[in-house]
Amino acid sequence: CSWTKNIPNAPTPNIIIMLMDDMGWGDLGVFGQPSKETPNLDAMAAEGMLLPNFYTANPLCSPSRAALLTGRLAIRNGFYTTNAHARNAYTPQEIVGGISKDEILLPQLLKTKGYVSKIVGKWHLGHRPQYLPLKNGFDEWFGSPNCHFGPYNDQSIPNIPVYNNSEMLGRFYEDFKIDRNTGESNLTQIYLMEGLDFILRQTKAQQPFFLYWAVDATHAPVYASKRFLGKSQRGRYGDAVMELDYSIGQILKWLRTLGIDNNTFVFFTSDNGAAVMSGPNESGSNGPFLCGKETTFEGGMREPAIAWWPGHIKEGSVNFQLANVMDLFTTSLVLAGINPPDDRILDGLDLTPVLLNSSQPLKNRPIFYYRGNELMAVRLGQYKAHYWTWSNSWEEFKKGINFCPGEEVPNVTTHEQKEHTLQPLIFHLGRDPGEKFPLSVLSKEYQDALSRISAVVQQHKDTLVPGIPQLNMCDTAVMNWAPAGCEKLGKCLKPPESNPWKCDWPH
Amino acid sequence: CSWTKNIPNAPTPNIIIMLMDDMGWGDLGVFGQPSKETPNLDAMAAEGMLLPNFYTANPLCSPSRAALLTGRLAIRNGFYTTNAHARNAYTPQEIVGGISKDEILLPQLLKTKGYVSKIVGKWHLGHRPQYLPLKNGFDEWFGSPNCHFGPYNDQSIPNIPVYNNSEMLGRFYEDFKIDRNTGESNLTQIYLMEGLDFILRQTKAQQPFFLYWAVDATHAPVYASKRFLGKSQRGRYGDAVMELDYSIGQILKWLRTLGIDNNTFVFFTSDNGAAVMSGPNESGSNGPFLCGKETTFEGGMREPAIAWWPGHIKEGSVNFQLANVMDLFTTSLVLAGINPPDDRILDGLDLTPVLLNSSQPLKNRPIFYYRGNELMAVRLGQYKAHYWTWSNSWEEFKKGINFCPGEEVPNVTTHEQKEHTLQPLIFHLGRDPGEKFPLSVLSKEYQDALSRISAVVQQHKDTLVPGIPQLNMCDTAVMNWAPAGCEKLGKCLKPPESNPWKCDWPH
Ligand SMILES: [Ca+2]
Ligand SMILES: [Ca+2]
Repeated sequence: CSWTKNIPNAPTPNIIIMLMDDMGWGDLGVFGQPSKETPNLDAMAAEGMLLPNFYTANPLCSPSRAALLTGRLAIRNGFYTTNAHARNAYTPQEIVGGISKDEILLPQLLKTKGYVSKIVGKWHLGHRPQYLPLKNGFDEWFGSPNCHFGPYNDQSIPNIPVYNNSEMLGRFYEDFKIDRNTGESNLTQIYLMEGLDFILRQTKAQQPFFLYWAVDATHAPVYASKRFLGKSQRGRYGDAVMELDYSIGQILKWLRTLGIDNNTFVFFTSDNGAAVMSGPNESGSNGPFLCGKETTFEGGMREPAIAWWPGHIKEGSVNFQLANVMDLFTTSLVLAGINPPDDRILDGLDLTPVLLNSSQPLKNRPIFYYRGNELMAVRLGQYKAHYWTWSNSWEEFKKGINFCPGEEVPNVTTHEQKEHTLQPLIFHLGRDPGEKFPLSVLSKEYQDALSRISAVVQQHKDTLVPGIPQLNMCDTAVMNWAPAGCEKLGKCLKPPESNPWKCDWPH
Repeated sequence: CSWTKNIPNAPTPNIIIMLMDDMGWGDLGVFGQPSKETPNLDAMAAEGMLLPNFYTANPLCSPSRAALLTGRLAIRNGFYTTNAHARNAYTPQEIVGGISKDEILLPQLLKTKGYVSKIVGKWHLGHRPQYLPLKNGFDEWFGSPNCHFGPYNDQSIPNIPVYNNSEMLGRFYEDFKIDRNTGESNLTQIYLMEGLDFILRQTKAQQPFFLYWAVDATHAPVYASKRFLGKSQRGRYGDAVMELDYSIGQILKWLRTLGIDNNTFVFFTSDNGAAVMSGPNESGSNGPFLCGKETTFEGGMREPAIAWWPGHIKEGSVNFQLANVMDLFTTSLVLAGINPPDDRILDGLDLTPVLLNSSQPLKNRPIFYYRGNELMAVRLGQYKAHYWTWSNSWEEFKKGINFCPGEEVPNVTTHEQKEHTLQPLIFHLGRDPGEKFPLSVLSKEYQDALSRISAVVQQHKDTLVPGIPQLNMCDTAVMNWAPAGCEKLGKCLKPPESNPWKCDWPH
């Protein structure tokens, strides 16, 4: 393909994917955050390429991350549930499943070309031993298998462990402090140091590397270290953003200092939209987009995205290619000179023609918006068709849980699962990025868009072989009671009897 | 004051105010428009200063423009109505009133220092002879007294005239075409040429000038010239934005070509928030802000704003000063070395300390949000207190007129005029720019903010002497039947008998 024309005999670049947690499209200055508190990310965009039409594969952490590392939709790689229709599922401590051994993860493939891979931060693809990063292609890991919820009492629920490679180092709230009152935690600083140290070691060893920097300071409970607390106009969430922005600036500076900036491809994005249900202190902004995390509206799945590779990606460019996290899988392989696996359907495309030669014509590829086992919506070009709409249930809504606070679009932000398959709602996202004005079904524009999207959906469904769902079963016995390494630390807890149940996924 | 330290003996700079019509905060790439179609404005920001906390004085054209040119709130300068409580009023063709002769307009004062002033575009301060620009300090005018609504039949309603200085040149839809089907009109190109020509003439004459470039392509019915139609991802509204952006680029380039860029202060902003009630084809974006035009929510009054003056304003700077269009009055006077009038209360502040020395500490000044004769809300620092809330009436709303489409914040976007004076709703606009999460009235934060804002409101009300309302009376006899110059053109129409009535301002 054409990218090879642009970089003949190029050495295989290092690859860094910076994946934020619940950060919204509208949280960056360059994407219109009124507080303009991300000077390093804004500079990264000025030195690289901004992708305003970049998507996640799922509006929730675990399936989004599984899709990134497998290049495949969650419905294919098994990171979904069939316990009920169209439910978001992830990997809390009581989940039994994890990433299927039949999936091939990005670091496993990169290893074939000599890459050393490290994940720093949140894994979220299963916390039982066989599912952990070092069993799935990563050479190093510093971070946690689950979210940093807590503190727990270590009786009914254990605190989440922090691993260094294959053994735990301690637990959140015990050995790795997060002050729930002040929001203080130095975790982002630790994650920064882990990243810088890894980059330095691989550079010295002249080893190509893959760093998956999966920090989680912007996931509730949001945190920042003392130096950043109180610094933002936006409160604690903004403090977390400022610390991440600072840290990203430090990483890019480190690449320059080490002289490897021209040989390191860096991609910045987030795993799902801002968690607007968490209220103003713990949530980011999805800018002009509707709703947020958990939903298949734009606010749930459109992500901030910046590609950076000095000397290769044109500085200050903007590309409107429809793209998504699964493309990072395929693109990384192509950059490393590795053929993507041909024994399975991949959803990720090779973005190198777009990234390395922005005059390349855009591919007319669809974006699929899944919620659990249901294809809720499809975007093709500027048109997005909703086949199902749902924010959350009346039951949850009446308890005050609101996935679209302050927003209400009749027939769109519905509180029942509403089927539109016979006559999808269609929006033109160029004129109406906020999904507020459905096209008239009587218009030629609607009919034209529908016929093009219908063909894409038909083809997708005809060829879809759903993976075995991995997120159906829960069991308190599988929680992080006694992670590897707990003996040395005296941190082993006694698990209860196994008592598996079908997980309840309320939304 | 300190600005003189920065520019000792500076010659009086030329002044250009570029005032857009109904353009929203979120319509610029630099403010997060996903389509990123404003390369010239984004470059202007990169070369100048971005002001994310810049406001209009009123969520509607006429009072906003009256405030800009007088440096005074509409409640003082008379550009409001007392026909009903808290109603937006402007100058349609049937309005009897206009800008009071007791007001002093910016060009009148600039003339004392030898400035030549031209308005290009929409005037909107009254269309009867005594109210027109050349009677109120401007030396030149090319444009219209009212909005470009139409076409009319010239029987019951005359088409709006286009003036060249003190005489009409023709009428919209007749001599100055706007194709309502295609949206084609070359008006922006004409307005561009009028601006460039004026700049050239004053430069050759070595005369300091004030250009008030008040273009209206983004006001419904939106229009663009053939070259721009269909170019935007956003439809016709976006086409209009792209043409304005192009034209602004041409003006800045012209200043450089003529070598006067270092001696020309340019300010870009808009007269009110995007008219989101006009639907996706005819409306811009207010980014993350609530509602739009006609309302006193952030979407109605927060405006895009860029200050540009190479060599004087620091390039690529961002300043969070709370500022507004009335400051442009006072700031322009200070730049011209003219003492602001001291016989009246001015609401505009001198922004030169902020613009010319961005390290200057910010002034803790309030922003007042008026709707007609009522102070609806006040911002002080990050806190905004709503004393009254109203979107529009149930009656209008049920007819499908929606000032907050897709948005609904209980107790906030109310359809009755809701009084909160005893317990104002207070929002922290840093954490919650979308005004979705009122602070708990029981919190210390609420009490502290309220006590500070209350003192400001008390002082404001104690010293307020409302001007005589100019927008109460309507009469079809005063419409643009026979503007000056109509005889030469054979374009005089016969007015009906005078039959004045109290204008009906429904929202
Ligand atoms: Ca997440
Ligand atoms: Ca306007």
